Amino acid sequence: MKATPKGNRLHIGLFGRRNVGKSSLLNSLTRQDAALVSDVAGTTTDPIEKPMELLPLGPVLFIDTAGIDDTGALGELRVQRTRQVLDRVDVGLLVSIAGEWGEFEEVILAELGGRGIPVIVVFNKSDCCAVDDGRLVALHERGALCVVTSAPRGEGLPALREALIQCAPDGFITPPAILGDLVPPGELAVLVIPIDLEAPKGRLILPQVQSIRDLLDNDAYCMVVKERELRGALDRLKRPPALVVTDSQAFLRVAGDTPDAVPLTSFSILFARFKGDLTEFVVGALAIDSLRAGDRVLVCEACSHHPIAEDIGRVKLPRWLRQYVGGRLEFTHLQGHDFPEDLGSYQLVVHCGACMWNRREVLSRIIRCRQAGVPITNYGLAIAFSLGIFQRALGPFPAALEAYRSHSLPRS
Amino acid sequence: MKATPKGNRLHIGLFGRRNVGKSSLLNSLTRQDAALVSDVAGTTTDPIEKPMELLPLGPVLFIDTAGIDDTGALGELRVQRTRQVLDRVDVGLLVSIAGEWGEFEEVILAELGGRGIPVIVVFNKSDCCAVDDGRLVALHERGALCVVTSAPRGEGLPALREALIQCAPDGFITPPAILGDLVPPGELAVLVIPIDLEAPKGRLILPQVQSIRDLLDNDAYCMVVKERELRGALDRLKRPPALVVTDSQAFLRVAGDTPDAVPLTSFSILFARFKGDLTEFVVGALAIDSLRAGDRVLVCEACSHHPIAEDIGRVKLPRWLRQYVGGRLEFTHLQGHDFPEDLGSYQLVVHCGACMWNRREVLSRIIRCRQAGVPITNYGLAIAFSLGIFQRALGPFPAALEAYRSHSLPRS
Repeated sequence: MKATPKGNRLHIGLFGRRNVGKSSLLNSLTRQDAALVSDVAGTTTDPIEKPMELLPLGPVLFIDTAGIDDTGALGELRVQRTRQVLDRVDVGLLVSIAGEWGEFEEVILAELGGRGIPVIVVFNKSDCCAVDDGRLVALHERGALCVVTSAPRGEGLPALREALIQCAPDGFITPPAILGDLVPPGELAVLVIPIDLEAPKGRLILPQVQSIRDLLDNDAYCMVVKERELRGALDRLKRPPALVVTDSQAFLRVAGDTPDAVPLTSFSILFARFKGDLTEFVVGALAIDSLRAGDRVLVCEACSHHPIAEDIGRVKLPRWLRQYVGGRLEFTHLQGHDFPEDLGSYQLVVHCGACMWNRREVLSRIIRCRQAGVPITNYGLAIAFSLGIFQRALGPFPAALEAYRSHSLPRS
Repeated sequence: MKATPKGNRLHIGLFGRRNVGKSSLLNSLTRQDAALVSDVAGTTTDPIEKPMELLPLGPVLFIDTAGIDDTGALGELRVQRTRQVLDRVDVGLLVSIAGEWGEFEEVILAELGGRGIPVIVVFNKSDCCAVDDGRLVALHERGALCVVTSAPRGEGLPALREALIQCAPDGFITPPAILGDLVPPGELAVLVIPIDLEAPKGRLILPQVQSIRDLLDNDAYCMVVKERELRGALDRLKRPPALVVTDSQAFLRVAGDTPDAVPLTSFSILFARFKGDLTEFVVGALAIDSLRAGDRVLVCEACSHHPIAEDIGRVKLPRWLRQYVGGRLEFTHLQGHDFPEDLGSYQLVVHCGACMWNRREVLSRIIRCRQAGVPITNYGLAIAFSLGIFQRALGPFPAALEAYRSHSLPRS
């Protein structure tokens, strides 16, 4: 966590009077993630910066305006301090309590709005103070997202996370590299791209094109080869490549032709990280181990027009999962932006690579699954797990491999 | 020419009564192309097959129904023979003379129409027989393309060529390989793709993606690398690649880093062949040598939204051409499907790679330029010529190199 430079974190300004429960709200968000909070305390009137790993959003910096949030009119110094905070936040979190909305909140809201900073209004302590619907509607009409929370009960936290994802600028939602960070500058990756009857004519699919471009953008280069020519291509090199990436469907064959010392993964796993959350999807894939005959699996595809994805989602993936489980499973297939309100009846959600979507939408679905207590993974990880090549495919990602090892060990 | 299997040639059925000038029409088309005609004579009632190289369309097979085209009603045998021809033609060419249209023509037209075969009606001998406009309109309304020709005067031949291009099925217009035929199966091509500020974000441009795919489709593979990493990438190989392809703009640097023994060309030159006619564009580029200060150059771009193409067409190409000519040139820039009716005021037409267009449209423009006697080339060939790397860039294409040598030698 500390490796992330402060400047790369999403800056979330936390505003609110005393006793609205800002600290407990922050702690609830923190505890739920089992992430470390290290307060960087300043003077009493200085805002307190709290770096956090807010899953699945990534590294954030909460700027808690403690010391400038006491009751009454804002004095000149306080206005000045608040303005300094306002100048550097990406998202504003205004915490209040139903019935206590007043001048302070209106000033903060106006200041944020005037700067074009997205605002989330949190009505906390919903356990003791009921929120007026008219207030919510009025705020919504002014462009603020509203969330009702109860920190001690943990209520509203998924909604708050989802609101943060909605508000975060694209730069924080889309990580900069697909695989460029795994291949040093001047180094070589080998991309294995099978061409079968289902491959769209005369072109490559988006994850392949984006991966090639990402390598070039990071001063690396690549070899692009079908699985049949892979062995000859590797033989042609004086030194082995820094990484081999394959289409998931060719994983077994490619693993056989790639020396053990060469890191190997799949496009789907790259996109689990790029468009979703790799650790979450790794933990989700481990749930395949607990599937029993008769369990329900929800298979989600972003687009309807992709014949390869359709074939994987409707034919190959169900077959591999059934083989692994050794019994019938009930599959439900969804396409597009619809996502069931009630996920509780599923034992697993398996998502496509979502190459045509932004990361925001996938992260929102991850939160929805967390909230419902349903594991979620993606095609590539589910395939790698059911084919028994999970550990090798996660080799290039130490954190994900660690998550796999800690979750798959028997617990005491 | 003989290397092209008969089955791969566009089959053009030639129908018409005696004395309408079918043979002289065919000879005019042939002479203009300086291509060999080798008649494969059959029995007197069998159709005669004439394989031809009909530039810029490529290899065709004229099936001349001589022997079944005499006057009068069609006898049973003749109907049968004609039907056999009808069963295998891709395009029907019905030659007639104004004033002689009758039952024979109507039967042929109906037979072709009933089979869904595109028809071109040629009213020949326009020098002596004026065509009735009403007849042309009526035929046009029945879906036939009409062309008025005079074989001895050479009139209407470009229009006939253009009609053939319009009628030819896509498979004959789009050649099967971009570069897959230049790289043997199991062999390696290196594709050099500079990433500058003008490169569209997060992806590759279409010719690059299509080239990668074409290699995979032909069981070859490739290395994709920026120009700065090329030397390191080549050093990593035990054997040199079969071909290096670069973006035209990086040609000089790439030529310096690529061993002389390795064939080198550019994406633009590949696309001169794939989307246009390489020999025609090579001859067109040689006209740069004859440009004088004050001459007019027409620069044509297929699309308006491509920042790289715009920069090349509007800034770099004009600069390189001016430097080569050593004086001012008048540039006119056109975008999209508009093409001037009157090309006569231009000394040269330079076209973009037309990666977003089908080949048909570029071939039509080539014919229009021929007709106006204006040389036409494309960006890549114009750049290669003005940078003095023409001969090396044509190395992989023996026929084009031969055209270059024969046209650039002083004539006696």
